[in-house]
Amino acid sequence: MRFLHTADWHVGKELNGYDLTADHQVAFEQIKSLAQTEHVDAIVVAGDLYDRRVPREAAVATVNQELKELNLELEYPVLAVSGNHDSAIRLGTGSDWYQATNFYLHTELAQAFEPVVVGDTQWFLLPYFELQAVRNYFHDDTIQSLPVAMEKIVAEMQAKFEPQYHQVLVAHFFAAGSSRTESETKVEVGGLNAVPTDLLAGFDYVALGHLHNPNALQLPRIKYSGSPLKMSTSEATIEKGVWIVDTKTQQVTWHALQPKHDLRLVIGAFDELVAGNEAGNHDDYVAINLTDEQAIPDVMSRLRVVYPRILSLHRLHGAQIKSLATTKQVNVKQAPLALLADFYQLVTDGQQLNPAQQQWAKTSLEQVLKGDD
Amino acid sequence: MRFLHTADWHVGKELNGYDLTADHQVAFEQIKSLAQTEHVDAIVVAGDLYDRRVPREAAVATVNQELKELNLELEYPVLAVSGNHDSAIRLGTGSDWYQATNFYLHTELAQAFEPVVVGDTQWFLLPYFELQAVRNYFHDDTIQSLPVAMEKIVAEMQAKFEPQYHQVLVAHFFAAGSSRTESETKVEVGGLNAVPTDLLAGFDYVALGHLHNPNALQLPRIKYSGSPLKMSTSEATIEKGVWIVDTKTQQVTWHALQPKHDLRLVIGAFDELVAGNEAGNHDDYVAINLTDEQAIPDVMSRLRVVYPRILSLHRLHGAQIKSLATTKQVNVKQAPLALLADFYQLVTDGQQLNPAQQQWAKTSLEQVLKGDD
Repeated sequence: MRFLHTADWHVGKELNGYDLTADHQVAFEQIKSLAQTEHVDAIVVAGDLYDRRVPREAAVATVNQELKELNLELEYPVLAVSGNHDSAIRLGTGSDWYQATNFYLHTELAQAFEPVVVGDTQWFLLPYFELQAVRNYFHDDTIQSLPVAMEKIVAEMQAKFEPQYHQVLVAHFFAAGSSRTESETKVEVGGLNAVPTDLLAGFDYVALGHLHNPNALQLPRIKYSGSPLKMSTSEATIEKGVWIVDTKTQQVTWHALQPKHDLRLVIGAFDELVAGNEAGNHDDYVAINLTDEQAIPDVMSRLRVVYPRILSLHRLHGAQIKSLATTKQVNVKQAPLALLADFYQLVTDGQQLNPAQQQWAKTSLEQVLKGDD
Repeated sequence: MRFLHTADWHVGKELNGYDLTADHQVAFEQIKSLAQTEHVDAIVVAGDLYDRRVPREAAVATVNQELKELNLELEYPVLAVSGNHDSAIRLGTGSDWYQATNFYLHTELAQAFEPVVVGDTQWFLLPYFELQAVRNYFHDDTIQSLPVAMEKIVAEMQAKFEPQYHQVLVAHFFAAGSSRTESETKVEVGGLNAVPTDLLAGFDYVALGHLHNPNALQLPRIKYSGSPLKMSTSEATIEKGVWIVDTKTQQVTWHALQPKHDLRLVIGAFDELVAGNEAGNHDDYVAINLTDEQAIPDVMSRLRVVYPRILSLHRLHGAQIKSLATTKQVNVKQAPLALLADFYQLVTDGQQLNPAQQQWAKTSLEQVLKGDD
């Protein structure tokens, strides 16, 4: 059978204050479209459907709608688990009813050991779990690390393997040897909380969630799908998409998604950027690095005219205002206009106020001192 | 057909800080038991399943479990609407799948006009709504009051009445002429936001939620079920239970629930109460009114030894400590022991510290002034 592997939707996430609902919608439309053109037989969602345990109503409405379209309208079997960002209890609402339409959403560890047969495959759906849940399940308080826990979990699963089926594991954890971005919540501490991938060799495919980079693991049959959207500037250069997996041909192919707004690092001189000369789409989410060194009044508001979705603003060659501690002291016991002139000199590396600036400063200071609006 | 009418579960509510989960569980067990012994064909839940829009995880788990048992395990059709305490979007999660097992949970106004046929009855499930939703639905901005809105809503429903069926309305609003308790959130302002009951005459039965008193309306076929639990001291004397309705015989019968802990008003003298002489169950939630007039040291902690679930403590004949403004002034510029004696005289209507009290006060004050623990 053919299935589409996605994960880490993080619906409800705000990117530095920007609402991503419209971006999620566009990604979901492409996922549904891909599922159809690629003739998949099922959709896999490997955890972190929500960005947080108590999502806003708008996020709940978005996930409910997406799952309804995938399962009830397009009639795809859906195989999903909860991730560390989801509330297992909240996400699990309705899951007892979902099974009737081949929507399997497992949110409790014990469910991982009840394989689901869809198509030619036995599906093991392992939600994100805490070690204590494993100790409770196996009645074994000696389980103190994720490798030990996973060894027991996989053994329990393998005892249920039926040879006439393929076996696919859907899970949400940190696999040893993976590379990270800055936007995933760290759930592991060193090797004790990373799953050794050799434990997973018995599965035909392991559909992972948690890491946002689809190339976090360089293994042919154990893969993170990554998130459908770029979730932080650390993911600016990571292509987003889904894997299409074919259990018969054993082919795993990558399909990139085209974001509604890309997330890019922009490096340039202020004058070039505000003139609109930068080649990329200015509607993207941008992390701007200015090459300028001098102070630029109203820098953010002037850049926003060209770039409406600025995530951050930095200077490539250092801070805009040097630390006062490392430069000459300003005498603060002088008249306001003289103090301002000194300060201007300080932050511009020695420039003087020109006559027009002096006039503006003088008038402004007079107004302030008079108490005018 | 026969159905059980309940509402206003308010799962997740805390009663003056006391968790009601165990009380809800006992009520739910009795509801399930009643449904079976009374051979009902369906369960009606007329809104406010949750106490608040963002319930705690424990509340979500409780409601999910209860609905699963009613619909999937006991296989009752369930007909439910959202109330003003529920988040329509959160509560509605899964509802598109529920219908396959005759669980109809309507959370949007438009769904009220898609009658559901279960048994011999057409069910109109009208969730709690805001006037703006009615204006939007009918494209009519002139709708400015609940009576006008309900007239249009009922007319739209009646156009879908099919004579071979009974018609039952499940709704969550304030019906004109109802009596209130203090524990319902007020959603009406005078008559403009109350539904005239004559509008509802076309229905064989109207199963209402919102008011917590099953006798809030004295009408034979339009009824509030009330809440399964007493939700405040204002409900202390209100019996809790469910209605069992028979569409064939047109009989509506009351079945009381036996609470895990009752909620009672207790009136008595402090000495009698701490001696355990009060006849009621001391494990109940109690609002205590003391008949004593004198000051009682450690009154709350001593009562809690006998009554572990005290909701409030009052004096039947007035406040323990009279307002200083209305009594003689205490000279605060005197020695601590003299000041204490004056204060004691003030709050006990003229009594003097006895020698033992004087000795205790003297020692205590000395310790305080020395800085001992």
